[in-house]
Amino acid sequence: MGKGGMSHGSAGEAKDGEEENMAAWLLGINTLKIQPFKLPPLGPHDVKIRMKAVGICGSDVHYLKTLRCADFIVKEPMVIGHECAGIIEEVGSEVKKLVPGDRVALEPGISCWRCNLCKEGRYNLCPEMKFFATPPIHGSLANQVVHPADLCFKLPDNVSLEEGAMCEPLSVGVHACRRANIGPETNVLVMGAGPIGLVTMLAARAFGAPRIVIVDVDDHRLSVAKELGADEIVKVSPNIQDVAEEVSQIHKAMEAGVDVSFDCAGFNKTMSTALSATRAGGKVCLVGMGHSEMTVPLTPAAAREVDVVGIFRYKNTWPLCLEFISSGKIDVKPLITHRFGFSQKEVEEAFETSAGGGNAIKVMFNL
Amino acid sequence: MGKGGMSHGSAGEAKDGEEENMAAWLLGINTLKIQPFKLPPLGPHDVKIRMKAVGICGSDVHYLKTLRCADFIVKEPMVIGHECAGIIEEVGSEVKKLVPGDRVALEPGISCWRCNLCKEGRYNLCPEMKFFATPPIHGSLANQVVHPADLCFKLPDNVSLEEGAMCEPLSVGVHACRRANIGPETNVLVMGAGPIGLVTMLAARAFGAPRIVIVDVDDHRLSVAKELGADEIVKVSPNIQDVAEEVSQIHKAMEAGVDVSFDCAGFNKTMSTALSATRAGGKVCLVGMGHSEMTVPLTPAAAREVDVVGIFRYKNTWPLCLEFISSGKIDVKPLITHRFGFSQKEVEEAFETSAGGGNAIKVMFNL
Amino acid sequence: MGKGGMSHGSAGEAKDGEEENMAAWLLGINTLKIQPFKLPPLGPHDVKIRMKAVGICGSDVHYLKTLRCADFIVKEPMVIGHECAGIIEEVGSEVKKLVPGDRVALEPGISCWRCNLCKEGRYNLCPEMKFFATPPIHGSLANQVVHPADLCFKLPDNVSLEEGAMCEPLSVGVHACRRANIGPETNVLVMGAGPIGLVTMLAARAFGAPRIVIVDVDDHRLSVAKELGADEIVKVSPNIQDVAEEVSQIHKAMEAGVDVSFDCAGFNKTMSTALSATRAGGKVCLVGMGHSEMTVPLTPAAAREVDVVGIFRYKNTWPLCLEFISSGKIDVKPLITHRFGFSQKEVEEAFETSAGGGNAIKVMFNL
Amino acid sequence: MGKGGMSHGSAGEAKDGEEENMAAWLLGINTLKIQPFKLPPLGPHDVKIRMKAVGICGSDVHYLKTLRCADFIVKEPMVIGHECAGIIEEVGSEVKKLVPGDRVALEPGISCWRCNLCKEGRYNLCPEMKFFATPPIHGSLANQVVHPADLCFKLPDNVSLEEGAMCEPLSVGVHACRRANIGPETNVLVMGAGPIGLVTMLAARAFGAPRIVIVDVDDHRLSVAKELGADEIVKVSPNIQDVAEEVSQIHKAMEAGVDVSFDCAGFNKTMSTALSATRAGGKVCLVGMGHSEMTVPLTPAAAREVDVVGIFRYKNTWPLCLEFISSGKIDVKPLITHRFGFSQKEVEEAFETSAGGGNAIKVMFNL
Repeated sequence: MGKGGMSHGSAGEAKDGEEENMAAWLLGINTLKIQPFKLPPLGPHDVKIRMKAVGICGSDVHYLKTLRCADFIVKEPMVIGHECAGIIEEVGSEVKKLVPGDRVALEPGISCWRCNLCKEGRYNLCPEMKFFATPPIHGSLANQVVHPADLCFKLPDNVSLEEGAMCEPLSVGVHACRRANIGPETNVLVMGAGPIGLVTMLAARAFGAPRIVIVDVDDHRLSVAKELGADEIVKVSPNIQDVAEEVSQIHKAMEAGVDVSFDCAGFNKTMSTALSATRAGGKVCLVGMGHSEMTVPLTPAAAREVDVVGIFRYKNTWPLCLEFISSGKIDVKPLITHRFGFSQKEVEEAFETSAGGGNAIKVMFNL
Repeated sequence: MGKGGMSHGSAGEAKDGEEENMAAWLLGINTLKIQPFKLPPLGPHDVKIRMKAVGICGSDVHYLKTLRCADFIVKEPMVIGHECAGIIEEVGSEVKKLVPGDRVALEPGISCWRCNLCKEGRYNLCPEMKFFATPPIHGSLANQVVHPADLCFKLPDNVSLEEGAMCEPLSVGVHACRRANIGPETNVLVMGAGPIGLVTMLAARAFGAPRIVIVDVDDHRLSVAKELGADEIVKVSPNIQDVAEEVSQIHKAMEAGVDVSFDCAGFNKTMSTALSATRAGGKVCLVGMGHSEMTVPLTPAAAREVDVVGIFRYKNTWPLCLEFISSGKIDVKPLITHRFGFSQKEVEEAFETSAGGGNAIKVMFNL
Repeated sequence: MGKGGMSHGSAGEAKDGEEENMAAWLLGINTLKIQPFKLPPLGPHDVKIRMKAVGICGSDVHYLKTLRCADFIVKEPMVIGHECAGIIEEVGSEVKKLVPGDRVALEPGISCWRCNLCKEGRYNLCPEMKFFATPPIHGSLANQVVHPADLCFKLPDNVSLEEGAMCEPLSVGVHACRRANIGPETNVLVMGAGPIGLVTMLAARAFGAPRIVIVDVDDHRLSVAKELGADEIVKVSPNIQDVAEEVSQIHKAMEAGVDVSFDCAGFNKTMSTALSATRAGGKVCLVGMGHSEMTVPLTPAAAREVDVVGIFRYKNTWPLCLEFISSGKIDVKPLITHRFGFSQKEVEEAFETSAGGGNAIKVMFNL
Repeated sequence: MGKGGMSHGSAGEAKDGEEENMAAWLLGINTLKIQPFKLPPLGPHDVKIRMKAVGICGSDVHYLKTLRCADFIVKEPMVIGHECAGIIEEVGSEVKKLVPGDRVALEPGISCWRCNLCKEGRYNLCPEMKFFATPPIHGSLANQVVHPADLCFKLPDNVSLEEGAMCEPLSVGVHACRRANIGPETNVLVMGAGPIGLVTMLAARAFGAPRIVIVDVDDHRLSVAKELGADEIVKVSPNIQDVAEEVSQIHKAMEAGVDVSFDCAGFNKTMSTALSATRAGGKVCLVGMGHSEMTVPLTPAAAREVDVVGIFRYKNTWPLCLEFISSGKIDVKPLITHRFGFSQKEVEEAFETSAGGGNAIKVMFNL
């Protein structure tokens, strides 16, 4: 691997008398090192943030284990991390809405605002997007980062920095609910009770879903989902032959038609179940990415006008996430199962914990 | 098979002095016979129509060859046919907008208007739908039929009865275009240049699509599509390995992003091509039903927020079809490649022609 | 005035041995009499309901005082009442989802299902609508009525008959919220804290509105609104000159932009305030009907792309109302301020109470 | 008035050996002078354009006559003009899609891309918008201007520079049609046959409107509208008492319901006519700005669920305008009735012609 990434900062040393900014660098497979990270200059619309809470995402673990995720490949040392919140330390000359000391949550992606997709309001699909810890862009597991002020959202007084960092995973659920148009008339099925299934369930409830059934192969995950508010849980097998039988279990648990299904796993079996369980005229939202090529009964679903919509990250979600958390409509705190400090040893332990499978939902750094 | 179907009429004899109503009955595999067909009584909101033009649909052929189509099975003798137009002979006591002598095109499905889907305006998805020639409901290849007046649409003076019958297949294309939201900013890809591909192409043009590329494996079909108005045609192979190469040919032919793809074939390969060719944020509309279970790259498409929408028949399409035909925005006449009279021999020949594969697009009866 | 209305029953006497069905007949200005009401025959899709709870609506009072409401004029004796719930006594031959003994709330309007608006799913706009107590159609303040089964909605066990009757006024608020697309990101302003303002406020909250400010000229109404869940109340004057000042009070109370305003009064001043207070790109929903011709700053609002949408009654709202009530998201019980039995004297008193202005919100008959 | 505006350039002199850039400066009421205009430095995403065609808009005339338009007031000398096209002379370091020599049409407004409205895709409502010739921002009636590359749209070979400049007024019609959702099922009424009425009519046709009726008080304007493609014209009076009679004339001319009305005049009478003429469930789009406060029958329209939508300028319209012009769906050339060169005398004459009332539709400068 070559020299540092070209944006969001670079490897480097602090000037005299200045505290050195340290970050967690992904240097190779299974190799993360805390090393100096030189910040880029502060632009007129930027702010400098002292990071206080950074969560570990499945994609971070994937990069650590394989140096790749979907089509992205890590070719040079890269700072990792993108679920984060911190405190403003310095603001650019044109920044009017933030001041040093403000506690903020960070939306990680910077889009170009010049392409058609940005101009239409679908900036999450911008082909020029620069996103924390998506190569070659550096991430935010660092003492300090520089970021555009309009992507930093001030936390209400009753929202903690950790809860601020949770806006990122929660945004996935919120964007999925918006794409599927969830409201008080939408009975919801969630396939998969992992972290993404759980945030989707919480978001669906906050959008008003009157009844939510969640499905998984794992008893512990299901019991967590039940505690977090699922109306009914359905334990399923990993065998594709069981789809028809399980669909009828799901229908029994729902006591009504399934208006929208979220497939938060993304395997042939989960997607087959979602397509079959959803009522005529309903929607399936594909969130998880277990399989890439899928073998599923797409034609019968299409012939019942069950639409399939996907999501890519999120857009415009931070204000709503903060409203949900601040108002108590969503409680993200139970999702944070493990906490670590920002030392070399703890960083390694934290990633092991997150990757370990066990019962970790969200692993959080307190910097 | 048992006795006649219970709706839309029954097998029977004419009363004295009354001309006997004859219809084409599907009696078994490959067995169609012209036999008497007794009409149900005329309700207050019904009209009696003398049929003048009836087209043969792929589903009619399917029933003739197999006695089934999708989940529907012909268990008793059934009158066939559902693409039709005729002349009003008698109107029910409450009918105000039609009079005997009016030339009308018939929308074939009667929905319940009591279920949620009907009340929401998605009556095509009504689970109680009674549809011409979908068992156990009789069809309309008959001298006379009785039908609700509000499903009979008066033909403008410059629209022929044959063109009236063509509203039915055209409605499939119109409904697909509405579901995919086609307009003057939508570049359209059509996979498959058979009858459904062609009506979808014509409808997309009438909805304003500025550029349409159509794809098929057959040179003759492609040349017909070009004559009927495709901007570009792309000849493809039946091999799934060629998808990537063909997508780049399609992109070259489009000279722009593909906003919406219609898969009018519905096979693994056509759907894989449609999903891969469509731009981020675009739509794929699955119209054809070649394969039921599909193996396709659904996840990468979902991750670019390419939505997949399907269609089931149509709703509220007749007025628009008549406007398109009457205004000249769509010319359906070139689609009618063969014509037959309504004798036992000609009925048999007509179905052979339609099933024959050759170059028949639409086979039409003139009664 | 001539003989009885032609639908939903007629004046008449009971057969021997049959209990006589009595109803409250509007016979002239300020003249309501309890008299026999002969029911129409029970059609195959109809049910006969024993009425148990009927509320008085502002339009009922208007008819009593003037024999007219909007463009409708009472020309013949008419049974009054349309907010109602009761118990099924008999079901038609084709009715499958209801049985005698079921407790149901009634949607009062029967649309034609043959016109374009019905077929598009906007059946509330059907020009052939037959609606309880809208002349010449009889209403439901009677011991028994006959009504289509699909317009009778079974009450969940934890919903009372009075709450069932409240689905009708609540439906106005629910339809307004749907038209204005209220959700968890919509800050809502409600102009007017009368019965319609209150149900709109309750519905907006149930649709997820995070912040609701309500405005009135009356302190008592405002205090009721506050108790029922308004975040902030703003007392205003009846003077049009105060609009600018009051808009800034409203903005202060909202602490954010006003995304949607509901004008539940419908006067020049309330509408001017709503148009001026709403943010660029927001919506104003006109619900109240105080003034017909309005003098308002429409152009400046249009130039900020503030859309104005109106409502006519409601459609498809009963299931959602019952869900809101059953789940506890909405509590309609505090709106019922007065109760009366169904005697001649009590009917007169009840209408006086409803018309009296005082502090009555909803006056309810228990039959 | 003080010194030059602070953006898009300033008053100034050319450096030695450099050709001096001249512009038409608005210096006071009825005072336009051609004077030197110093361009701002070329940013990395900017281009420098040699202006070739600039049209005069009603707002330009308004500023010349009154130094104000709506809420905007000209307080310092300002270069006028915003309907324009030219040839790229120089491109910034990051510009990839344009090269010197490219012929381009310019979208005049630069939005902030940091506010909620920009991020939602409604950038035309951005409160920080910098727009050619809206004070204090300089316009484009100059030899050269500097502008962001992403707001410069390359002209197809068969589109002239004058047609390129016409994209600006045409964009108003296109945005109105998008807001009102015009398509092949929308019968359209246009109130007012001035320049904005005409571009709206042309856009509605290009969006597929099957039938368009246009209304004006002036015979000449109506005859122009008929030549440009109106299906029917209706001559009306300026008297408000005639609304009912004229609505029935309009209905007769439409031969069907009015689905959408565009009020391109914006007076009490035109808006009253539009609201009354539109069918239940239809839309009125308020485009013209004749009256600010309006006295109109808003409540009866709202009670038929006739929505009122307004527009502010446009967004994302240039590519579609160019497609419409290039494909021949819209011919803007007949709208250009007068042409002038760029001398002091001709500038004065051109504005007099535009203001003169006569039969001028669009007055164009060729620089």
